[in-house]
Amino acid sequence: MINIAVLGYGTVGSGVVEVINKNHASINKRAGQEVNIKYVLDLRDFPGDPVEKVLVHDYSVIVNDPEVKIIVEVMGGIKPAYDFTKQALEAGKSVCTSNKELVAAHGAELLAIAKANNVNFLFEASVGGGIPIIRPLNQSLTADEITEITGILNGTTNYILSKMTDEGKSFEEVLKRAQEKGYAERNPEADVEGYDACRKIAILTSLALGKQVDYRDIYTEGITKITKTDIEYAKALHASIKLLGTSKWEDDGKIYSMVAPFMIDSDHPLGHVNGVFNGIFVNGNMLGDTMFYGKGAGKLPTASAVVADVVDAVKHQGTNIMTIWEQDKVELGDRANFACRFFVRVADTTSKETIEKVFGEVEYVTLADVSGEYAFLTEKLTEGAFEEKSKQVDMIMRIRTAL
Amino acid sequence: MINIAVLGYGTVGSGVVEVINKNHASINKRAGQEVNIKYVLDLRDFPGDPVEKVLVHDYSVIVNDPEVKIIVEVMGGIKPAYDFTKQALEAGKSVCTSNKELVAAHGAELLAIAKANNVNFLFEASVGGGIPIIRPLNQSLTADEITEITGILNGTTNYILSKMTDEGKSFEEVLKRAQEKGYAERNPEADVEGYDACRKIAILTSLALGKQVDYRDIYTEGITKITKTDIEYAKALHASIKLLGTSKWEDDGKIYSMVAPFMIDSDHPLGHVNGVFNGIFVNGNMLGDTMFYGKGAGKLPTASAVVADVVDAVKHQGTNIMTIWEQDKVELGDRANFACRFFVRVADTTSKETIEKVFGEVEYVTLADVSGEYAFLTEKLTEGAFEEKSKQVDMIMRIRTAL
Repeated sequence: MINIAVLGYGTVGSGVVEVINKNHASINKRAGQEVNIKYVLDLRDFPGDPVEKVLVHDYSVIVNDPEVKIIVEVMGGIKPAYDFTKQALEAGKSVCTSNKELVAAHGAELLAIAKANNVNFLFEASVGGGIPIIRPLNQSLTADEITEITGILNGTTNYILSKMTDEGKSFEEVLKRAQEKGYAERNPEADVEGYDACRKIAILTSLALGKQVDYRDIYTEGITKITKTDIEYAKALHASIKLLGTSKWEDDGKIYSMVAPFMIDSDHPLGHVNGVFNGIFVNGNMLGDTMFYGKGAGKLPTASAVVADVVDAVKHQGTNIMTIWEQDKVELGDRANFACRFFVRVADTTSKETIEKVFGEVEYVTLADVSGEYAFLTEKLTEGAFEEKSKQVDMIMRIRTAL
Repeated sequence: MINIAVLGYGTVGSGVVEVINKNHASINKRAGQEVNIKYVLDLRDFPGDPVEKVLVHDYSVIVNDPEVKIIVEVMGGIKPAYDFTKQALEAGKSVCTSNKELVAAHGAELLAIAKANNVNFLFEASVGGGIPIIRPLNQSLTADEITEITGILNGTTNYILSKMTDEGKSFEEVLKRAQEKGYAERNPEADVEGYDACRKIAILTSLALGKQVDYRDIYTEGITKITKTDIEYAKALHASIKLLGTSKWEDDGKIYSMVAPFMIDSDHPLGHVNGVFNGIFVNGNMLGDTMFYGKGAGKLPTASAVVADVVDAVKHQGTNIMTIWEQDKVELGDRANFACRFFVRVADTTSKETIEKVFGEVEYVTLADVSGEYAFLTEKLTEGAFEEKSKQVDMIMRIRTAL
């Protein structure tokens, strides 16, 4: 029998308890021994909940108990998760976490501490919820040099954009309904402004590189400015608008990372990842294109990934699983040099002649029921060049494309 | 430095050499030491090819060389691959293979021999080519009870069905072109009759269960009877016809496995897996739906998966990676009890009245340019019931559906 402790009895924490109870037979078989929840830490009380029997309010009880070998950190946020995790690793306990803020900010450091203490710091659930992506990146795609990672990494925004597309509703209307249904937080900023996706692409890029990508260096744009009209244009282009976190290894030797809404072709593997689902597209120089798809959030899918990490931690007691993520910081490529095709809406005060003088060859798109404006797709050009050129036209909106 | 040997210098074998040469810096970093190809075994000579320097014709040179720690078996077939693999494992060498025939027939036994010798038998490339699926099933989906695995597991048949769909051509025409292009073998039986997919779903189901599923117990139907007209009907139903290998854990406690062409909804995650791509859909009782997508065949994608296994074998020298696949054979559920909705084409000598008397409520489909027949979708019913009922109508064709 191996004893574990769960820090935080919120959505994911209660999911972890549920998964371990429900699938105990198969989990114990896969782990090679019985997984026992000795403690659950939460500041709150849960009168009447079976968790009461193992509930503690004081972390020192857990960290000082030599019987506890694995700690599940599902509190979220940096404080006190960072201190708790560090103390646990230093006390010779492995830690499994779903906390993307913690991993993005301190992943490299915590991995080094785990290695020094011959324990493990595992974080499969921090990206893509239940989708296996961290372990495949670490252990399966090891023969390839990664050339691109592009993901739909946030279920809330993908749900909003999917609903806007399917039902022709505005961002505000859909957000309101998502909040009522509990799919979006009352303060939706971390999702709709792209901050959540930003941490996740930082984690994936760091793992692919083996070095630290600071999430604060990644240009991040949310979906709040996307309108019904933009979605209509996308449909006319046989495309979808998706919030993507993307990192590309370009020929200049630099890595360009960004979080922003993109128009992608409906035939792209990510083009049919709709609703609360996430999809993570990876290109390797030998493997070619691959994609991982599944539920990127939610109590049980996320808990499933956390518990899979627990099973791995049990199987690797006394062995540190090699994970290359050094603390040296990577200098990302300058966004001004990132190139893509842009979708641009302009007021019809700008003539097509002007457009072509400024942008060269473009592809026009018009919508029958939209007046006073038209739109076009540029050829591939850099962000820097685009920003210069767009000053010369009456631009209403621009969206990057992967078309 | 660690020495390896490659058995077979065909498509995959030469791919393995290419991947190791091309990505040597990152592979050596991930492996923690230099991976050196000491021998390549092939009966043929390759005058002028750099492989000449390490080419041997006699396996005993390799298996008796204590410096060789890892053997890559990419010859295919059972003989002599089975004997070579067994000898290697018994000599304390890990084996990485892409050989689905070998793994389907002897996987459990070879894993047991590897365990007894404290080495590893790895076979990521045996299913889904470059798609990471074996390792995720073994190590990532460990908190779940699997309820379904359904995959597009054969690139050749998926290419043929995709071309038939996109270009309105017949099976024979597309097969011929695929053979000319090298996408299909001159003897295409293993692909088009579903035998290849059968071995792959047997491997995946065995791993999910931890027990032996005998591929010979799996009902297998190929795609040779699928016509242009079937494809037209599928389009009218907003569906695609895909050759699926599927295993379902049903409420009666049984597992139903089958390989057959199915009509699936275009909105299903597998509905957009086209061309030579493979997709493997897995449902877990906690995780929900997840899918793995990528190139299921081809020299470099397959070699990429083999080399990732080599990296894993290097990292796990002296440790057996726990893989639960016991030799006890599983009794699959009787196909007569497998239930689905059937798509049925009947000659118009059978009246709709008769159809409804026999099948109850059905959903009719007609094509404007097809005469003398019509089609319908049944409600969900078992194979056994369907076979009985279908005797009472002038059936032209039936295709199972996941609609």
